Amino acid sequence: MPASPSKTKSAAKAGPSARSAKSAEKPTGRETAATEAIIALDLPAAPLDAEIEAFFQKCRDKIGFVPNVLLAYTHDLAKLKAFSAMYNDLMLAPSGLSKLEREMIAVVVSAVNRCFYCLTAHGAAVRQLSGDPELGEMMVMNYRAARLDARQRAMLDFAVKLTETPWTIDDPDRDALRKVGFSERDIWDISATAAFYNMSNRVASATDMRPNAAYHATAR
Amino acid sequence: MPASPSKTKSAAKAGPSARSAKSAEKPTGRETAATEAIIALDLPAAPLDAEIEAFFQKCRDKIGFVPNVLLAYTHDLAKLKAFSAMYNDLMLAPSGLSKLEREMIAVVVSAVNRCFYCLTAHGAAVRQLSGDPELGEMMVMNYRAARLDARQRAMLDFAVKLTETPWTIDDPDRDALRKVGFSERDIWDISATAAFYNMSNRVASATDMRPNAAYHATAR
Amino acid sequence: MPASPSKTKSAAKAGPSARSAKSAEKPTGRETAATEAIIALDLPAAPLDAEIEAFFQKCRDKIGFVPNVLLAYTHDLAKLKAFSAMYNDLMLAPSGLSKLEREMIAVVVSAVNRCFYCLTAHGAAVRQLSGDPELGEMMVMNYRAARLDARQRAMLDFAVKLTETPWTIDDPDRDALRKVGFSERDIWDISATAAFYNMSNRVASATDMRPNAAYHATAR
Amino acid sequence: MPASPSKTKSAAKAGPSARSAKSAEKPTGRETAATEAIIALDLPAAPLDAEIEAFFQKCRDKIGFVPNVLLAYTHDLAKLKAFSAMYNDLMLAPSGLSKLEREMIAVVVSAVNRCFYCLTAHGAAVRQLSGDPELGEMMVMNYRAARLDARQRAMLDFAVKLTETPWTIDDPDRDALRKVGFSERDIWDISATAAFYNMSNRVASATDMRPNAAYHATAR
Amino acid sequence: MPASPSKTKSAAKAGPSARSAKSAEKPTGRETAATEAIIALDLPAAPLDAEIEAFFQKCRDKIGFVPNVLLAYTHDLAKLKAFSAMYNDLMLAPSGLSKLEREMIAVVVSAVNRCFYCLTAHGAAVRQLSGDPELGEMMVMNYRAARLDARQRAMLDFAVKLTETPWTIDDPDRDALRKVGFSERDIWDISATAAFYNMSNRVASATDMRPNAAYHATAR
Amino acid sequence: MPASPSKTKSAAKAGPSARSAKSAEKPTGRETAATEAIIALDLPAAPLDAEIEAFFQKCRDKIGFVPNVLLAYTHDLAKLKAFSAMYNDLMLAPSGLSKLEREMIAVVVSAVNRCFYCLTAHGAAVRQLSGDPELGEMMVMNYRAARLDARQRAMLDFAVKLTETPWTIDDPDRDALRKVGFSERDIWDISATAAFYNMSNRVASATDMRPNAAYHATAR
Repeated sequence: MPASPSKTKSAAKAGPSARSAKSAEKPTGRETAATEAIIALDLPAAPLDAEIEAFFQKCRDKIGFVPNVLLAYTHDLAKLKAFSAMYNDLMLAPSGLSKLEREMIAVVVSAVNRCFYCLTAHGAAVRQLSGDPELGEMMVMNYRAARLDARQRAMLDFAVKLTETPWTIDDPDRDALRKVGFSERDIWDISATAAFYNMSNRVASATDMRPNAAYHATAR
Repeated sequence: MPASPSKTKSAAKAGPSARSAKSAEKPTGRETAATEAIIALDLPAAPLDAEIEAFFQKCRDKIGFVPNVLLAYTHDLAKLKAFSAMYNDLMLAPSGLSKLEREMIAVVVSAVNRCFYCLTAHGAAVRQLSGDPELGEMMVMNYRAARLDARQRAMLDFAVKLTETPWTIDDPDRDALRKVGFSERDIWDISATAAFYNMSNRVASATDMRPNAAYHATAR
Repeated sequence: MPASPSKTKSAAKAGPSARSAKSAEKPTGRETAATEAIIALDLPAAPLDAEIEAFFQKCRDKIGFVPNVLLAYTHDLAKLKAFSAMYNDLMLAPSGLSKLEREMIAVVVSAVNRCFYCLTAHGAAVRQLSGDPELGEMMVMNYRAARLDARQRAMLDFAVKLTETPWTIDDPDRDALRKVGFSERDIWDISATAAFYNMSNRVASATDMRPNAAYHATAR
Repeated sequence: MPASPSKTKSAAKAGPSARSAKSAEKPTGRETAATEAIIALDLPAAPLDAEIEAFFQKCRDKIGFVPNVLLAYTHDLAKLKAFSAMYNDLMLAPSGLSKLEREMIAVVVSAVNRCFYCLTAHGAAVRQLSGDPELGEMMVMNYRAARLDARQRAMLDFAVKLTETPWTIDDPDRDALRKVGFSERDIWDISATAAFYNMSNRVASATDMRPNAAYHATAR
Repeated sequence: MPASPSKTKSAAKAGPSARSAKSAEKPTGRETAATEAIIALDLPAAPLDAEIEAFFQKCRDKIGFVPNVLLAYTHDLAKLKAFSAMYNDLMLAPSGLSKLEREMIAVVVSAVNRCFYCLTAHGAAVRQLSGDPELGEMMVMNYRAARLDARQRAMLDFAVKLTETPWTIDDPDRDALRKVGFSERDIWDISATAAFYNMSNRVASATDMRPNAAYHATAR
Repeated sequence: MPASPSKTKSAAKAGPSARSAKSAEKPTGRETAATEAIIALDLPAAPLDAEIEAFFQKCRDKIGFVPNVLLAYTHDLAKLKAFSAMYNDLMLAPSGLSKLEREMIAVVVSAVNRCFYCLTAHGAAVRQLSGDPELGEMMVMNYRAARLDARQRAMLDFAVKLTETPWTIDDPDRDALRKVGFSERDIWDISATAAFYNMSNRVASATDMRPNAAYHATAR
C-alpha cells in the first residue's frame, strides 16, 4: 500500500474543504477548483471489484484516504492491479533496504524529475518514517545537503546517476555500492526502486496528477 | 509476453553457438564468455513454480526462447510476476495504439536512454511487426528520420519529451496529441508505455542486462 | 530584512533544541551536531557595530531569530551591509511586484539551482505571505504544477529561462512580459530579483549554508 | 572509398525495388516515395568528369553501388573531391588504428549525434569488418555495453568526450590514451577521425541525407 | 569603482562617434543606432544626487567615462548605490585574491553565461591589469587554454562548477581550494565573486545591456 | 588559404618577441615558453614538397606568417593537402554567402565549442573583413547581442542548432532559411561551413592547438 501518512488526523481534517475556504482569501494567481480533477485526462472510473474495494477500504482505515495515484488508475482495473502489485512488492516487501531508504530513493529520483505528485506523497513518507521533517525537505530540495553516512550517500548517488544518465552506469558504479556494504540483492532493489519512480514520475507528469491535500501537512 | 521474434529459425540457429565460433576469429578487443551471464549481479534463480514454468514454455513454443529480461527476474518470482503482468497489460492488451506503435514508443524511449537490451529486443519487434526493417533502424537511430505521419510523429515527440524533461509536460503537450486524433485513453497509453520503458531501461542499464543473441538477426 | 516567518511561535519553540532531541532517536544515516556550524568555512564573526546590533534586534523582535544568512556574513561587516542593503531594496521596497511575487521568484530560481538554504527560507516566506502552504510546496517542487494565471506564469517562466540560459534572453522574452501587463520597471524588478537569487544560491551552495531550523515548520 | 559492404549480393538484390513492394503492405505511417531524393535540398548534379566517373565505377565494382553521400556531393565536383580525399586519407590510409577501429569511432561519434545516415553506413562497416554483427549494434546503441579491452575503451571514451564537450579536453585526456599504448600519431588519428564524423554527421543531418537501402541488410 | 580602463585615450577617442562613421561603410546586417540605448527597457534616469554625481565624476577623471552598467541603474538611485557598494567591496577591497584574479573570475563566469556586457568590460580589465592581452582572450574563449598554475586553475574550476551546477558543490570542492593554498576567507571571496557575476550577467542579459564602446580597444 | 589578417604590420611586429618580453613582467600564474609548441602532440614535421612550400610562401607574402593550423598538419602532407583543399573551397570559393558571413559562422560555431584556436583566428577575420571590431567580439561572446538582420540571424541560429543538437534539424529549420531568402545551395554552404568548424574545433581542442600571436592584435 502506498506511502501511509498515518497519525495525520489534523491534516486530514484540514483537507479538501479547508483548502477551498483558504483559496477564497488568497491574493495569488493560482486557480483552484472546488472539486479538482485528479488527472488532466477525462477517464471515467470503472466499477470497482471486491478486491479493489477491500484494498481501498484498507487505505482508508490505515491512512484516512485513498491515495490519488490509485484513483488515477481506476479507469482500468487491470492497470490498477498491475501497478499496485509492483508498488507493494518494491516498497513494502522484505529487502536489505529499510522502508525509509526506499522512500528516500523515491524522493530523490522524483526531485531530479521535478514530479509534484511524487515529491508530495513520498516527501511526506520520508518525514513520517524518519521522524525527521528536515530530512524530508532535504530529499526534496537537494539530498547532498543531508550529510548522510557513506552508505546512504552512495545509494542516492547511484539512484541519481541512474536517473540522469542511465547509459553511463558501469561496473565501477556497482562496485561503489558493494564497497559500502550493499549485497547483490540490495543493488537490484536500489536499481528497481529508482527505476520504478522514473516510471511513476512520468505517468504523474504526463497526466498532471494531483496529490491528496492531506500529504502537505503530514508529519511536519 | 515480451517482444516475439517468431519465424526467426535461421536467426535462432545462428544464435549462441555460431557467435562463439565467430568470436574466436575476430580481431576486436571485445571480450565474450562462453556462457555469458545475463546480468552483472550475482543473483541465483529461485525454483520456478508451475505458473512461471508454463509461461516460459509458452515463450519457447512461440518465439523459440525465453527472453533474458524474464530470466533476469527469476531470482524473485514475485518481482517476475509483477513485471510480467504490467508488461503484458501495456504491450498486449487492447488499446487505441497498435502493438507496433507501442513497440515504436519502446524503442524511441530506449534510444534516448541508450539502453542496449531494450533497443535490441524491441528494435527486433518493430522490424517484425512492421515488416519494414529500415523502420526498426530509424527508431533506434533517430526517429525523426522516419518521415512518419503527423499522428505517429506527435506520439513519439510526446514520448521523447516525457523521457527527457518530464517536468515540462503541460496542457499544450496533451492538446497536441488530441489534435492529431488521440483519445484520452490513448494519451494514457502513450504515457504509460513511455513511462514503463523509462523504468525498464534503467533496470537493464543498472544490471548490465544482455539480450538474447537471437534478436540481432530477427526480421532483417 | 530577510524572509520573515512571523507568528511562528510554535515553530520557534520546536526549533533547535527540539531537533536535537529528535535526532537522537532517528535511525537514518544523517549526522547532526549539537551545535551545527552555519557554514562550512571557518570564519569567526567580527565584533558587531551598533547598526548591525540594531538590525539583528529588529529581526529577533519581528521573527524570533536572526536569519542564518546574515550570521554567515558577520565575518565582514562591510559585506553584511552591502548584502542587506541590496536584499532589503529588492525584496521590501515598493515595486509593481507584490512581496509574495518576489518570494515566488526567489523560490523558483532556487529550485532550478537546488539551493537548500534558499528553498527552505523563501519557501517558508511563500507559505506565509500567501496563506497557501501548497503554493509554497509547488514553487519548491515544480512551479508549472501551480496553475497560475498568465501573468504570474510568464513572470516565473522568464525567471527560469534567465536562470538556466541567460544568453538566450531576447526581445521576444521581454515582450512576453509586456503582453501580460508588466511595466518596464516590473521587468527590471523581475530580472533583478531572479538575478539576485542566482547570486545568493551560489554563496549558500559554495559555503554549505544551513537554514534556521524554525523555517521548516513555518506556516504549514 | 567509403564503407564498403562487399559480399552483400542478396542485400543489393533486395534493395530499392524490393523496398517499394514491401512499403505497399505495411500499416505504418511512414511515407516512402518510389524514387526517394537523397537529400532534402534541390541541388541538381553537375556533369561528372572522368576522374569521378572512374571513382564511381570502382565503387560499383567493389560494393555494388555508389554510396549516397558521394551522390549528395555531385552538385559541385570540387566539394566532392575535397570530401573524398579527406575521407580516403582518414579511413583507408595506413594508421596505427585498424580500419575497424576507425569505423568504430565513426559509429560511436554518430551515435552521440544520432545521425541516421552515418549510423547506417558505418554500422554496416563495423559488422562487416569485424565479422561480429552484435559489435556493430553495440556501437550504434551504447558502446559501453561492448566490454572492450582497455585500449579500445579509452579510444572511444576520448572520441565521445571530444564530441560532447571538446572544450574540456586537456592533458590528462591525452595521457589516458598514451597510458593504454597509443602513439602521438595514433592520438592525432583518433582525434581527426572523431572530428571528421562530427563534420560529416552535421552535413548529413542538415540535408536529411538518406543511406543506400543495401546497408541495412549488410553483414547481419 | 568598476573595471577601469585607464590610459586608453586613443580608445576613448575612437569611441562612439568613430563607431557611427565606421558603421555607415560596413556591409554587414548589423543594425546600429546613432545614439544606442544602454538597455532595452525604457527607464528614464532619476535626478542624480551629489554622492552619485561625485562618483560619476571620479569615473570620468580616472577612466574617461562612466561605465554603462552604472548608467543602467540610474533609474533608481537606491539600486545604484546598493549595486555599487557590493561591487566596490568585492572587486576593490583588500582580499587574498589579487584584483586581477577577481577579474579573471568575473570573465570566466561571464563566459559560461555568455554575457556580452561583462565579457567586454571585464575582459578589458584582465588585459589591462595583467598587461597580457592574450590572457584576456583566453579567459573569454576558454580559460582551460591558459595553462595557469595549479592555484589559479583550481580557483577558476571552482568558479565554473559553482556557475554551472551549484547544487553539486561539496566538501571535496572546498578542500581542493584549501589544498592549493587558499584560506577560508579566500574561499569566501572566490565564491562571492563568482556568485556576484552570476547575478550581474543576468541583469545584463535580461536588459540587453550594451558596454561602452571604449572597452573594445582597451589594452590590446 | 586560411583567415588572412593582412595589413596588420604593427600586430605582426608586436608578435612573438613582444609577447615574451611582456610575459616576463606579468604577475599571473600563466606559464609561457620561449618557443611554445603549436600542438600538445610530439609529431615532427615531414619535409615539405614544392607545392606546400609555395603555399606557405603565399601565406607569408599575403599575411606575414603561416597559420599555425597549417603547421600543425605538416607531420603528414596528405592530411595537410586534404585539409587545405576543403578549407579553401569552403571559405574562399564563390558562394551566395559572403566571405564575412562564412567567417561569422566559423566564429559562432567555435563559440559553442569554446575553441581557443578558431575563435582567435576567425575572430580576427571577422574584425578585418567587416571593419567592425565590435562585430568580431559579439560573434565570440554571444552572437545574439549583435542585432543582425533577419537573414544573418537565421543563418547563425541554424549553425548553432546544427552544432548543439544536429539530430533535431528538420524541414522547418531548412524552411526558415528559405523564408529569409537563402537558396538551396546557400543552405548547403551554411551547413557545410558550420559542419567544417565542428570538425576543425575538435582537431584543435584534441591537440591543444595554439594560434599565432599576431591574430590577437589584428584589426582591433
